Amino acid sequence: MKIAVLGTGVVGQTIAAKLEELNHDVIIGCRNTADVLSRNKPDNFGRPPFKEWYREHPKMKLGRFGEAASFGEFIINATNGAGSLEALKLAGEKNLNNKILLDISNPLDFSKGFPPSLFVCNTDSLAEQIQREFPAVKVVKSLNTINAFVMVNPSIVQGEHDVFVNGNDESAKFEVKKLLNSFGWKSENIIDMGDIRTARGTEMYVFFWALLYGTFQTGTFNIKIMKEDGR
Amino acid sequence: MKIAVLGTGVVGQTIAAKLEELNHDVIIGCRNTADVLSRNKPDNFGRPPFKEWYREHPKMKLGRFGEAASFGEFIINATNGAGSLEALKLAGEKNLNNKILLDISNPLDFSKGFPPSLFVCNTDSLAEQIQREFPAVKVVKSLNTINAFVMVNPSIVQGEHDVFVNGNDESAKFEVKKLLNSFGWKSENIIDMGDIRTARGTEMYVFFWALLYGTFQTGTFNIKIMKEDGR
Repeated sequence: MKIAVLGTGVVGQTIAAKLEELNHDVIIGCRNTADVLSRNKPDNFGRPPFKEWYREHPKMKLGRFGEAASFGEFIINATNGAGSLEALKLAGEKNLNNKILLDISNPLDFSKGFPPSLFVCNTDSLAEQIQREFPAVKVVKSLNTINAFVMVNPSIVQGEHDVFVNGNDESAKFEVKKLLNSFGWKSENIIDMGDIRTARGTEMYVFFWALLYGTFQTGTFNIKIMKEDGR
Repeated sequence: MKIAVLGTGVVGQTIAAKLEELNHDVIIGCRNTADVLSRNKPDNFGRPPFKEWYREHPKMKLGRFGEAASFGEFIINATNGAGSLEALKLAGEKNLNNKILLDISNPLDFSKGFPPSLFVCNTDSLAEQIQREFPAVKVVKSLNTINAFVMVNPSIVQGEHDVFVNGNDESAKFEVKKLLNSFGWKSENIIDMGDIRTARGTEMYVFFWALLYGTFQTGTFNIKIMKEDGR
């Protein structure tokens, strides 16, 4: 499948590499390719510049948001939450319409340090903002509750653990679940919470996740929902 | 131990009954005993009036918030989050000072229906508001991430699952952990997240919990944190 991954950060890189490994035809979308490829310094998290990773993935395409969205039959939003709406506008509504948009972004505001605040919560979510802005796009929220390495390789966390799906379009959620299966997620560990409004729940969970990250000093963890004992 | 449980709702009732079963000397605190005992109608959730439950617990004491807090060597806040600060003021700072306050409340606002909003989040929490208002009280947040029946009987949820503790005072957290042990929580399933600010995480998790309640149509569930595979 032709897939556009919007965002050049660690989430975008990790997802794109996994998709390439699964023989998808992948393009990474960014605001400005020349800018991205000219960066020589590590990013804010100390990771090597994008171009080093890009050099190691010679088959990977890179383009502006609009080129990427036009190429992709399936779109993944792995941009920084604070810039997601703008990135998607640059990608272009006509390039996105009627396509599935897997939204991995979170509405995190790190401007006051750690822990981050959510810039939208309670009565709205970033996923809903995106769905309202692009009513003809099939927005499905998923994977935003775990770190990038767990997203594409759930077995690095021990035992059974869960990932969540939120969205209005049943067939789009079905396709996203198939993609999650291909990443290694068992169907019984994919919890469909309901329509796109339920993304408020997983986005607010991310605040809790960030504090647990502080407690554990690692992002390699996830949760398993345990239910009523059948006794 | 002499324990005051503030709040006559299902959480207060369930916790108080468990404490009585564990041979503690329990008093339930309320705003006005005559009012509570005169109610004849089911509450907003369709539960029978308090006096029916109270009749079945003849050894249980009932008093105003101040009487209860004065009696208790250990205080449990099981009041509605929206009224918690006022209830604690009625309980009286001098009756609370230097005691452990196990805070189970959540800052839920149901005024716009389901799902509830949090009336404080991101940069503050109800637990922190309580700690700031009563600086000489040893506030420990716990049990707020699960429903009342799971709180006092974790085995009704299958397998291993976790409860969280947040607070500034290490010895107070130690005592709360002992109480949790007596409720059936294994020490390895009690996660100390850190100081009272980390209560923001568990309070915001409750929003996610509420949406999962909507998905599952039951509150008898909990989460287990799964960590990195040791391979």
